[in-house]
Amino acid sequence: MSLLVTGSIGIDTVQTPHGNVADVPGGSAVYFAFAASFYTPVRLVGVVGADFPVEFRNILAERASPAGRHGIDLTGLETRAGSNTFRWTGKYVGDMNQAETLKVQLNVLGELGPKIPDVFRDSQYVFLANTHPDLQRDLIGQLTKPKLVVCDTMNLWIETARESLLQTIAKVDGLVLNDGEARMLAGEQNLITAGKKIMQMGPRVVIIKKGEHGAMMVSKDHVCVLPAYPTENVKDPTGAGDSFAGGMMGYMAEQDSTDGATLRAAMVRGTVTASFAIEDFTLDGLRNIERPQVEERAAEYMNMLPPR
Amino acid sequence: MSLLVTGSIGIDTVQTPHGNVADVPGGSAVYFAFAASFYTPVRLVGVVGADFPVEFRNILAERASPAGRHGIDLTGLETRAGSNTFRWTGKYVGDMNQAETLKVQLNVLGELGPKIPDVFRDSQYVFLANTHPDLQRDLIGQLTKPKLVVCDTMNLWIETARESLLQTIAKVDGLVLNDGEARMLAGEQNLITAGKKIMQMGPRVVIIKKGEHGAMMVSKDHVCVLPAYPTENVKDPTGAGDSFAGGMMGYMAEQDSTDGATLRAAMVRGTVTASFAIEDFTLDGLRNIERPQVEERAAEYMNMLPPR
Repeated sequence: MSLLVTGSIGIDTVQTPHGNVADVPGGSAVYFAFAASFYTPVRLVGVVGADFPVEFRNILAERASPAGRHGIDLTGLETRAGSNTFRWTGKYVGDMNQAETLKVQLNVLGELGPKIPDVFRDSQYVFLANTHPDLQRDLIGQLTKPKLVVCDTMNLWIETARESLLQTIAKVDGLVLNDGEARMLAGEQNLITAGKKIMQMGPRVVIIKKGEHGAMMVSKDHVCVLPAYPTENVKDPTGAGDSFAGGMMGYMAEQDSTDGATLRAAMVRGTVTASFAIEDFTLDGLRNIERPQVEERAAEYMNMLPPR
Repeated sequence: MSLLVTGSIGIDTVQTPHGNVADVPGGSAVYFAFAASFYTPVRLVGVVGADFPVEFRNILAERASPAGRHGIDLTGLETRAGSNTFRWTGKYVGDMNQAETLKVQLNVLGELGPKIPDVFRDSQYVFLANTHPDLQRDLIGQLTKPKLVVCDTMNLWIETARESLLQTIAKVDGLVLNDGEARMLAGEQNLITAGKKIMQMGPRVVIIKKGEHGAMMVSKDHVCVLPAYPTENVKDPTGAGDSFAGGMMGYMAEQDSTDGATLRAAMVRGTVTASFAIEDFTLDGLRNIERPQVEERAAEYMNMLPPR
């Protein structure tokens, strides 16, 4: 089933205790698209500047693989002449659970937002990666038959655009955010209580990402808790959250189901897909594997959980 | 099967965002014993001072219940005339993941350690709660036929008595410690790698407690990861780690098995037992429930994990 993602497409420079990379592909929509494309074709909507390297575009365009990875449709990738691509420079230290942003150049992300192409408006599964909630709502308004709309957000919007964010949250089926953001949004320390309070703002599913500590899902009649896949090989956590969301939404779009059992199986795929993403710099952790490896690790992960 | 615990027996004063209690029963061995006694009779070994209130002794002595809780054998509880009982004053703020120690009066814990009574020396399942590693080793030497010896430790001994601690660790089957301690002991940020490094120091099982983020077990051929039971009602985290260990070891002693499957099922019992402990102040969370409630929550917890 069609899966659309809209969010940042960027150029990253990252330092971790395991090395540094400069001017590599990044951005929330890109990580999401790579993660989701193990499961289903992805429609990418976003804006880059004239400086966006052709080799980055090729990396996106060539995502499909003979072994079964799906492609990323770039019809919604707008290249804006006279603008520059979003750039992020960050570093991770210690347990690498928190990125420290060293420099942000919003560039084209500070201008007019993207439009969803007419041929993408019928998308049923939609992920609105973190961006201004005004823009997220504008994008929702362009959809003609959404079945599952999930959005992400960040502390910046919780603090500076709360009213707009609440209007956006009221319009989505699911909200994905990290533990600190959930506590901030709900004004509540306990994560389950925070999740329930956020549900009262509109979404029927709230998914709280906890980095190396896994994820949690709160819905009307269920709570699901998952530890992270315990990888020993964390090189670069950039994109972990978006890869989690991409694996999860990709699986749901593939299954074309939004029921609770599918959602929980989807969270396993999200967990495992994210674990590959962080095992190498930039997109390399996701570029070099195929679906069978994802499923193999999913089985291994399930075996690490306590026996029923 | 016989389960022996030795560790602190204390008088606590605790502040949390949900209230304060002063001069209440506490101590690692006490929480452990209460948690384990859902599953199996517990032999308690420890020292208190002449000031230890008779009502605290009664709370320990009366642990057995008609509904099936097991008793705590106080043969190894030494009351030392002229000494005072260990006292701890601490507080929790925010997400309550870290205790802040406001005051410690070691009192009798700073004197000669306890002796294991002759009638307890045949104990097969043994938990050495956190204390000086010299004393832990002395206690191990008093056992005649141990089957599973597990010890806990803390950052203080890792920093100030590392050589002694390594000698103790080399003699035990399992080590239980929290994530920060595991990282410090192994000199390694990644918890799986840290667990494997600690295994090379001797124990065949390393269990890493992560507070509200659950627990992880590393053994030669298996890694097990468990989220915490997501309770909304955390009043006082004191004793959570010892209640986890008590639920886990109590279940293993009840099953009289140290194999991997039993250990994993035991970690579920530890997780759930600890969740009750933190839902009320001092021992009250463990005092007011019976085994069927533990099993009911264990089933509920399993249902919160992703489906296999």
